[in-house]
Amino acid sequence: MRNIDKKRLDALYMRLCKLKKTFLGYPCDAKFDYSPLYRFLEFPINNVGDPFEHSTYRLQTKEFEQEALSFFAKLYHLGKPHGYVTNGGTEGNLYGLFLGRSILGNVPVVFSQDTHYSIRKNVHILNLKSIVVKSLENGEINYGDFEKKIRRKKAVIICANIGTTMKGAIDNVEQLVRILKKNNVKFYIHADAALYGMTMPFVRGAKLFDFRTPISSLAVSGHKFIGSPIPCGVALARKDVFDAAKSYIEYIDAHDTTLSGSRDAFTPLILWYRIKTIGRKGFARQVKYSNDLAAYLEKKLKMMGWPNVARSYNTVYFKRPSKHSIYKWELAAQKDIAHVICLPHDSKPQIDEFLADLRKELK
Amino acid sequence: MRNIDKKRLDALYMRLCKLKKTFLGYPCDAKFDYSPLYRFLEFPINNVGDPFEHSTYRLQTKEFEQEALSFFAKLYHLGKPHGYVTNGGTEGNLYGLFLGRSILGNVPVVFSQDTHYSIRKNVHILNLKSIVVKSLENGEINYGDFEKKIRRKKAVIICANIGTTMKGAIDNVEQLVRILKKNNVKFYIHADAALYGMTMPFVRGAKLFDFRTPISSLAVSGHKFIGSPIPCGVALARKDVFDAAKSYIEYIDAHDTTLSGSRDAFTPLILWYRIKTIGRKGFARQVKYSNDLAAYLEKKLKMMGWPNVARSYNTVYFKRPSKHSIYKWELAAQKDIAHVICLPHDSKPQIDEFLADLRKELK
Repeated sequence: MRNIDKKRLDALYMRLCKLKKTFLGYPCDAKFDYSPLYRFLEFPINNVGDPFEHSTYRLQTKEFEQEALSFFAKLYHLGKPHGYVTNGGTEGNLYGLFLGRSILGNVPVVFSQDTHYSIRKNVHILNLKSIVVKSLENGEINYGDFEKKIRRKKAVIICANIGTTMKGAIDNVEQLVRILKKNNVKFYIHADAALYGMTMPFVRGAKLFDFRTPISSLAVSGHKFIGSPIPCGVALARKDVFDAAKSYIEYIDAHDTTLSGSRDAFTPLILWYRIKTIGRKGFARQVKYSNDLAAYLEKKLKMMGWPNVARSYNTVYFKRPSKHSIYKWELAAQKDIAHVICLPHDSKPQIDEFLADLRKELK
Repeated sequence: MRNIDKKRLDALYMRLCKLKKTFLGYPCDAKFDYSPLYRFLEFPINNVGDPFEHSTYRLQTKEFEQEALSFFAKLYHLGKPHGYVTNGGTEGNLYGLFLGRSILGNVPVVFSQDTHYSIRKNVHILNLKSIVVKSLENGEINYGDFEKKIRRKKAVIICANIGTTMKGAIDNVEQLVRILKKNNVKFYIHADAALYGMTMPFVRGAKLFDFRTPISSLAVSGHKFIGSPIPCGVALARKDVFDAAKSYIEYIDAHDTTLSGSRDAFTPLILWYRIKTIGRKGFARQVKYSNDLAAYLEKKLKMMGWPNVARSYNTVYFKRPSKHSIYKWELAAQKDIAHVICLPHDSKPQIDEFLADLRKELK
């Protein structure tokens, strides 16, 4: 490699080191050290196909993937794990909606207007129709509007938000089920738990969203709260749902039930490693830390009189600040609001520095 | 982490070291050293959205992704690069077929029976119908059967194989176009160049398959001939086709035309690094080396009287050997044939050892 190219890599590294200090807006934790795993990047590893099926491709890490999946299945009260480690929340959601279509056929997909844009994209890829339901002020689905929009349908696929992107709102799955049953509508519910799948299980008294409710599938991000240099996630489904899709896929002469085919064998190691080094107790501690820090940020913002401050768990949202602040702190902004998602990598001094920047804007 | 878990990681590492020596069947090169890039795994990097659009997520490597894409665009004679680094061939093919559906609507997708199973899966995900065309003995699409199956259609999406999985066969794009034009059928052609996209451009007199023909999109694997510990690929499309699929997404402040959303920012560095360290001349040398080694293997197999030996470039296929040989050498096998795909990481002594194993079977 030429010297100039080496220098460019060095410059990229220095830039990332600097940017990491003001990385506040996105829900991706940065407090990790996976260096003990780097040696596995010496091999063309590949978890092609189903994580529970044998393949002649033996340079793989499926044993570790299976254990990581078991951890998540247990966390979400799913008897036996069915699913796989995905390339991220979007693939997990596509997988869930795809299973829904396999079960119910070409029925519309219903979700709130606060739903992440990737759901519309996924519904479009699957060639299905979307029914967009109004949201409540806090970002949760509007149950009245939901009932109005589903009551004349025979069957629907629902994408329930377990933490909306901007406001961290949680759709009440049990209430949705009551409305669907009351109106005799057949349903398949997929839980998009990309954001809160790793936090809500550790919060006492949190709304039920997992397989104790009648959801059929669930997707969670691996690179968000858990933290990973490479986007990843976990998709899980009930056995009957999974089997129904499997037989169909076998019918079309495909040999695996994943959407990907060739699959990253490194991120399953990352998830496994994180689970083994942090564990449930460690995750619980990190969730408490993040929620407490968010409560602190919320309090301070309200105290200084910043407009429209609200919080859901570790998501604090507020009136959109200046372009400069959005750029400096890498805030995600939509229309008139922006948010900070507090994570294990965030510190009080960092939050204070951010607050000082906003205070200047008020003057 | 507990000692027992550390030991399990060590055992996995040792197992992979051993298996690497007999990794012969799959088209994934193992001769790489990306250790200078490991430091970038310290960050939650993410190339979310379009590689050519600005995003507020600044922990990214899009500048390097753009350069890698430019290399591929030039290689395939595409004026300006449009596309992105994908998670592998399957996503690239889904992307191409998705663009095809965006342009032509819900028309059937036509491909040969030797086509990789992921194409059927992708067509199914997109909720389209498949038309499977017979193959010639060498794995190429049967042009007579193709004409019979498309002549009464108004419009079709074609998935052309630029290297089938088992036999390395190449569909003749120009001949397909002649047949389509003769029958007044509107078409969109996607080239699945997962296997040979990185070898055919370096072979003199190879059939045309790139953007000099009327294909609209193309997908190539990054973890196959180029070699990568993490599956990846490149999807490219013509500008007009690409623009048709664009939609403005406010949340990430970017035109997100990718299927993924959050995207791996590490594999673009891998591709960039490989391009910068090997370069076109290096790739040309590696292609020659691999094709020569395959010719050697073909000759030796024929000399020893192994049944049904044939070759397409660096793919040598032959009558399926014993279960033990398939397992030991990680051969991909389908029905009565198996193949070896010769790659830069393979050596003559390794091929000789493999031949010695087969020789024993003949006795």
